[in-house]
Amino acid sequence: MPHDITSFSNALIKRVRSLRDKKHRKAEGLFIAEGLRIVTEASDAGHRPRYLIFSSDSEAHPLMQRLIAETEAAGGTAVRTSRDILQKISGKDNPQAVIGVFDDLKVQLATLDRSTADIWIVAQALRDPGNLGTLLRTGDAVGAGGLILVDDCCDPFSVEAVRASMGAIFTQRVAVAPWPEFLAWLRSGPGQLVGTSLNATEDYRQPRYQAPVFVLMGNEKAGLPEAYEKACDLLVRLPMRGRADSLNVSVAAGVMLYEVLDQLGEKPARG
Amino acid sequence: MPHDITSFSNALIKRVRSLRDKKHRKAEGLFIAEGLRIVTEASDAGHRPRYLIFSSDSEAHPLMQRLIAETEAAGGTAVRTSRDILQKISGKDNPQAVIGVFDDLKVQLATLDRSTADIWIVAQALRDPGNLGTLLRTGDAVGAGGLILVDDCCDPFSVEAVRASMGAIFTQRVAVAPWPEFLAWLRSGPGQLVGTSLNATEDYRQPRYQAPVFVLMGNEKAGLPEAYEKACDLLVRLPMRGRADSLNVSVAAGVMLYEVLDQLGEKPARG
Repeated sequence: MPHDITSFSNALIKRVRSLRDKKHRKAEGLFIAEGLRIVTEASDAGHRPRYLIFSSDSEAHPLMQRLIAETEAAGGTAVRTSRDILQKISGKDNPQAVIGVFDDLKVQLATLDRSTADIWIVAQALRDPGNLGTLLRTGDAVGAGGLILVDDCCDPFSVEAVRASMGAIFTQRVAVAPWPEFLAWLRSGPGQLVGTSLNATEDYRQPRYQAPVFVLMGNEKAGLPEAYEKACDLLVRLPMRGRADSLNVSVAAGVMLYEVLDQLGEKPARG
Repeated sequence: MPHDITSFSNALIKRVRSLRDKKHRKAEGLFIAEGLRIVTEASDAGHRPRYLIFSSDSEAHPLMQRLIAETEAAGGTAVRTSRDILQKISGKDNPQAVIGVFDDLKVQLATLDRSTADIWIVAQALRDPGNLGTLLRTGDAVGAGGLILVDDCCDPFSVEAVRASMGAIFTQRVAVAPWPEFLAWLRSGPGQLVGTSLNATEDYRQPRYQAPVFVLMGNEKAGLPEAYEKACDLLVRLPMRGRADSLNVSVAAGVMLYEVLDQLGEKPARG
């Protein structure tokens, strides 16, 4: 049975609200996902929230009923509260009807099994949480295995990144590693490292990609460091016909990933 | 010679600040672009600001010197002010060193010359200014002629859209039209209308695209209305290998546009 919380000064409410800050997410090993659609996708992917906080006016919704049952069956706590309190947690005027609090999903690079997918995404020094979430969403769409974040990237479990991922944060594996560790891991098994760069001379449609392909995207402003480009098996560029030699990193990644998907054929992701 | 403004209550400063609101942009026929890079790109594309408002501590920068000279030569006003006042205009803690105030660049659909480019982007009921700006940026990259906004889209001249366009707001033409007007205009000349839809059965790489191609993207949540899909010459879908049947609209547009660019060949945009 759901608990009722009617006070904003309730300790759990304060604790959940604090998870909007990276510092608290890290200390607690928890993060929040907002909205019936995303929390349902999480549950469908086998990730049940520790806490499911929902507005009383949406309790009757069949999906909410299912989420409440699944949360409690998995040992989590369902909490019924008001829209006002949800608004205070989310900081938005029109809060979603439900907030899920989940265990951090980061995995150790060493535990990633590269044989489970033909495509992997690697991002270096990515700074914008919207871009990070969008990379996860595109990764889900192309059946990628996951996203490896190298160097100092923004937090994949921020509210903004989770929202932009549209639930893919729960279906894509996410690992964080410094570049040397990533490179050592990559070279310990099969894998083609493909960087995108304005310095490349080869068009992205020329090479024959071979699974598992690791598509490497650089920082939004600076692109990839030269040493990283040199470590790539292939360095390719997207044609640029405009005045500004630039594409949004999520768009560039999308174009690359769909080219790789096309070449590797119709096999769905395994695992 | 630049004017000096040291007071936040100055009428021009208040007026520029008000341009962050759509209502005031519409009433004045003006919009703002922030940052040395974007304002320089505007000037390079022949768009000189009516007002160039810069921080005194950045006046010595060679690009700023050039912008001041170009603004004044074109009859505009250069205004030297403080970072504090720029911060108050932009609403950001770390404001850009320069803000340009430009005349609205919207063009009438009837004045668009479709023979000037092989690729055009059409967006329907687009709601997110970041997506809109990113579409413009991708349009610039593939040498598109411009962006046609049908139905109720967000404002292409908002600060957020201009920022996400990375200057492409000044190189891509932007027209706004209701759907019936767009369709009548489209059918008055050559043009292949290509819609993307999860309802389509044809893969986006199957058809032979023929210039001028009009790539039509639907609303972020709802996609294209059925009647609009029926009006398309081709309806295609991107493969989806994940759990969620969804892509960010800017990413989907990027994948489509690069496929069209690839098919149409190496011709740079004319005009």
